[in-house]
Amino acid sequence: MTITITAFERSPDGGQGMARDMRVRWALEEVGQPYDVRLLSFKAMKEPAHLALHPFGQIPTYEEGDLALFESGAIVFHIAERHAGLLPDDPNARARAITWMFAALNTVESPIVDREVAEYLEGDETWYEQRLPFIDGRIRKRLGELSGRLGNADWLDGAFSAADLLMVTVLRRLEGSAILEEYPNLSGYVARGKARPAYRRAFDAQPAVFTAAPTG
Amino acid sequence: MTITITAFERSPDGGQGMARDMRVRWALEEVGQPYDVRLLSFKAMKEPAHLALHPFGQIPTYEEGDLALFESGAIVFHIAERHAGLLPDDPNARARAITWMFAALNTVESPIVDREVAEYLEGDETWYEQRLPFIDGRIRKRLGELSGRLGNADWLDGAFSAADLLMVTVLRRLEGSAILEEYPNLSGYVARGKARPAYRRAFDAQPAVFTAAPTG
Repeated sequence: MTITITAFERSPDGGQGMARDMRVRWALEEVGQPYDVRLLSFKAMKEPAHLALHPFGQIPTYEEGDLALFESGAIVFHIAERHAGLLPDDPNARARAITWMFAALNTVESPIVDREVAEYLEGDETWYEQRLPFIDGRIRKRLGELSGRLGNADWLDGAFSAADLLMVTVLRRLEGSAILEEYPNLSGYVARGKARPAYRRAFDAQPAVFTAAPTG
Repeated sequence: MTITITAFERSPDGGQGMARDMRVRWALEEVGQPYDVRLLSFKAMKEPAHLALHPFGQIPTYEEGDLALFESGAIVFHIAERHAGLLPDDPNARARAITWMFAALNTVESPIVDREVAEYLEGDETWYEQRLPFIDGRIRKRLGELSGRLGNADWLDGAFSAADLLMVTVLRRLEGSAILEEYPNLSGYVARGKARPAYRRAFDAQPAVFTAAPTG
């Protein structure tokens, strides 16, 4: 059955792969599954046809036969459950990897997304500059804890898994802020993720988006 | 094997069940699994013994034999995977329920937690009152979308599942703000969740916490 995912028709980041379809592309490349992409305008994302697939009007979605999913973490998990290579076979190691998947999206990503939301929603408000230290403080707290746990390991818990895939994409959202560079082991971790052939293939599969929305 | 979870020694909400151990208690009650609770002081949560279990120094954790997990969503999922009653058997329905689990924690909970963070971190700042409409606007956007999808259904996707368990606990965080009441079908949904016998048992199992920290 053909897998079809959705992505932005015009990339808000000029093709830097920060949109959440990148996670799904990367997961599909890791397990060697081909996929089709349906590009959506911002307008189409809020229309009934797409809202039937994604109640919150976002990308990515995932369609395969009569199955339709949304929410990038859930889609990556679905791919990891159906195909070898993204979750350990040992039941306890598998449960720990799933724990880290939730941790990446719920505990680490939240303050990082808050930084982006503040910028586009409150960037022109008088308090924006004063608030930044609060936001960055929350991010640094989480990064410090994550850095402490990772230590000099290559990946979060043994071999590379769907948890690392999600965590790397979460940490990548800090690129350009200089915060990540304060934690050399986390910078190295992100670099290791980006060096994976499957990551490169996923990133390079974005040209349609890239050319549709040049940077700047 | 005995299941042991951790919870706050002193409840920040006076036993209203807003802490994330409530999700795990509720899940264990739904599947009929007994459990022990180890109460932790805020100080103990940041000490090495607990950080070894939970890298971010939070509650709840979950221990069962040589398995140790953290992150409430992952623990609820683990319970749902191991015991009947919290996830559908049909593979597609199961994948959709997991999608809603991630959606509850990543898409719906984020702006709601942001409201709490703003209150305790920036409640005394000059901009706090001005920011509230931004925060509540983000919450209302999500609740409107969720309300539209739920319609007059009892649960998110067919029978009650771990997704509803998580979503109800997420929406409960808005109790006292009057925002939830703007969406009668969501208020009814939360009330249905709280009326489940397993929810009541989980809630009533908190007396140690409740008595340790009286409200006000």
